Amino acid sequence: MPEISEKGKKMPASPIRKLVPFADKAKQRGIQVFHLNIGQPDIETPQTILDAIHHFDQKVIEYSHSAGFLSYRTKLTQYYAKLGISIQPDDIIITTGGSEAILFALQSTMDPGDEIIIPEPFYANYNGFAINSGVIVKPIPSFIENGFALPAISEFEKAIGPRTKAIMICNPNNPTGYLYSPEELELLRDIALKYNLYLFADEVYREFCYDGREHFSIMQLEGLDQHAVLIDSVSKRYSACGIRIGCIISKNKQLMATAMKFAQARLSPPSIGQVAAEAALDTPAQYFENVRNEYFARRNVVVEAINKMPGAFCTSPQGAFYVMARLPIDDSDLFCKWLLEDFESKGRTVMIAPGTGFYSTPGKGIDEVRISYVLRVDELQQAMECLAEALTIYPHRKHCK
Amino acid sequence: MPEISEKGKKMPASPIRKLVPFADKAKQRGIQVFHLNIGQPDIETPQTILDAIHHFDQKVIEYSHSAGFLSYRTKLTQYYAKLGISIQPDDIIITTGGSEAILFALQSTMDPGDEIIIPEPFYANYNGFAINSGVIVKPIPSFIENGFALPAISEFEKAIGPRTKAIMICNPNNPTGYLYSPEELELLRDIALKYNLYLFADEVYREFCYDGREHFSIMQLEGLDQHAVLIDSVSKRYSACGIRIGCIISKNKQLMATAMKFAQARLSPPSIGQVAAEAALDTPAQYFENVRNEYFARRNVVVEAINKMPGAFCTSPQGAFYVMARLPIDDSDLFCKWLLEDFESKGRTVMIAPGTGFYSTPGKGIDEVRISYVLRVDELQQAMECLAEALTIYPHRKHCK
Repeated sequence: MPEISEKGKKMPASPIRKLVPFADKAKQRGIQVFHLNIGQPDIETPQTILDAIHHFDQKVIEYSHSAGFLSYRTKLTQYYAKLGISIQPDDIIITTGGSEAILFALQSTMDPGDEIIIPEPFYANYNGFAINSGVIVKPIPSFIENGFALPAISEFEKAIGPRTKAIMICNPNNPTGYLYSPEELELLRDIALKYNLYLFADEVYREFCYDGREHFSIMQLEGLDQHAVLIDSVSKRYSACGIRIGCIISKNKQLMATAMKFAQARLSPPSIGQVAAEAALDTPAQYFENVRNEYFARRNVVVEAINKMPGAFCTSPQGAFYVMARLPIDDSDLFCKWLLEDFESKGRTVMIAPGTGFYSTPGKGIDEVRISYVLRVDELQQAMECLAEALTIYPHRKHCK
Repeated sequence: MPEISEKGKKMPASPIRKLVPFADKAKQRGIQVFHLNIGQPDIETPQTILDAIHHFDQKVIEYSHSAGFLSYRTKLTQYYAKLGISIQPDDIIITTGGSEAILFALQSTMDPGDEIIIPEPFYANYNGFAINSGVIVKPIPSFIENGFALPAISEFEKAIGPRTKAIMICNPNNPTGYLYSPEELELLRDIALKYNLYLFADEVYREFCYDGREHFSIMQLEGLDQHAVLIDSVSKRYSACGIRIGCIISKNKQLMATAMKFAQARLSPPSIGQVAAEAALDTPAQYFENVRNEYFARRNVVVEAINKMPGAFCTSPQGAFYVMARLPIDDSDLFCKWLLEDFESKGRTVMIAPGTGFYSTPGKGIDEVRISYVLRVDELQQAMECLAEALTIYPHRKHCK
């Protein structure tokens, strides 16, 4: 039998999806499982998108331009202009989800053996994309005590070496919900310029900021045009993960010309999704207001519940729809599996993501879990009751200080 | 300014799309351009697909399973069963077009520096995917005189070295239209087994075979289950290139488990496209009968016209919708550009693909072009008249023997 690749052997199995078989078995036993493990919201996709799909009027579903339909890219520039981001259609390549945008960013700028600095915990799939590209992730620690704020610049400088090509952030952050301030982003700008690094920012959660905070983009930073690369997606913005439409944005012409070659090789992003995403730009502001209010209420339910559980702790994240919580447990992988295999309360249990999957440093995240607040408030309350009860009887509970 | 990657520098610009700016300029001058340069058919997408899109009934457009909807994969097994290909849903991972299936195949089995043997001329983007994966393409020649039949097995054996991991074919072939016989495929099976290689087959044109010939798949070969990897796509089958749905199929469990890790990293293939592709499986047989008859008539128009042009030659391909033709020209890149920049006949010109882009051996294909017969017969006739006239006045015409 021929061998599989070394790269393939190194690829991590999804830390979020590896629990799915255990959840399936729990359901087969008649147990109701609250899914707080993935970033798949229950929020309804806006009518603008559904209408565009229902009225799709092409007779031949053709490839689009490899960079995406010009009409869509043009209209996107207006969306970004309202956010204070001034770009042209040629600064945008439409991608198959944010995932492909990340791949294009890595492939266009980094070769096997090159290094990228990412504050950890970070979105688990960054690891997979890095391994796929032969790129080495250099994690630097952020800490639950201050809500996973930007690490000190000295930490970045310690991690920078001759093969360092880029820094990557996610803002607001998945999995921590942390929202970087303009001042923090300016520090990152300065270090990117000082060491001649790219700064990649995954800003797919920008619409979801709370407590009166506003999102500030790396594209708004002065003097960073040749270094800033924005990763974006409509998946979370419009609760339309399945249409697989994202984009990569940069004013660096050489980088975009290179990304275009990768884009041409795969021909085009999905046409129907692009038509839907273009229509989505007419979604009324009220939709986002409602969604933001809903997530805000949910966040408060989760944060309050977690901090009432003896030995558990989290801060109140100001963006996205995730909470990274510390629990009084020995091993988050075992605990999350135990919740599905050996626990139930009133015929219910909870599926959450082990913290370990969001760290590349071994041993980290062992007492942390990521909770996605992607269910209604009443369901979340029941889920948190479940979790609280589970912690009281978990056999490998850590002693509470 | 930070550097772009070495990999990015090596990526080829699309040989097919690099002429687009010249075509755009020709149109600006009021010239009608016959587009015979890309595999984007004008055939209408079947009503089954359009209906499924118009009746799309999800309220939240969610991620699908990373391997694609189980309902779709299950129904696909029935489609393949009718073709004599016996597989289970777990042998299939739905991909974003055939492009992603090729990437998954390469990434799951090959590391940077590994080698893949491909008869040339071959689909230009194989080069891009190989460079993206750090894989080295070892081309072996096929020849226009016999319609680009399978090269002698001795040629494969000469090309096999310690880093050779796979052989790749496209059947029916893009760009040559060649349809491999069961006997040729058995020779490939034997060599794959003898040298423990994977055999990748891109069979996206299987519905388009002519002259009473039937397609034979590598999945029908005995004893090759651990080696055979099928690349497929609905783009050409249903004239629905823009929905971006393909798949990778193999009975090699280890390979599929590895491909699944790459699939999980990018979350899911497009949901709407999958719903449409599932509905497409109910497309009546008459649709394909009509499309096949249409392509058959078109092929005959092109082949006859080419062979009437002094100094031009092509055989009559038995599959796909491409003709690779030899023309009496000095340089196919210059000629195809000249057609758009400096030529017109009755306000019309032709856009065709230079042959060089389909070879990785420098200098090959210099007097060949690929013609996609993706327009109606009357348009094709006009386009061929244009081409014939162009050849009579092309200043760098080769002397006719």
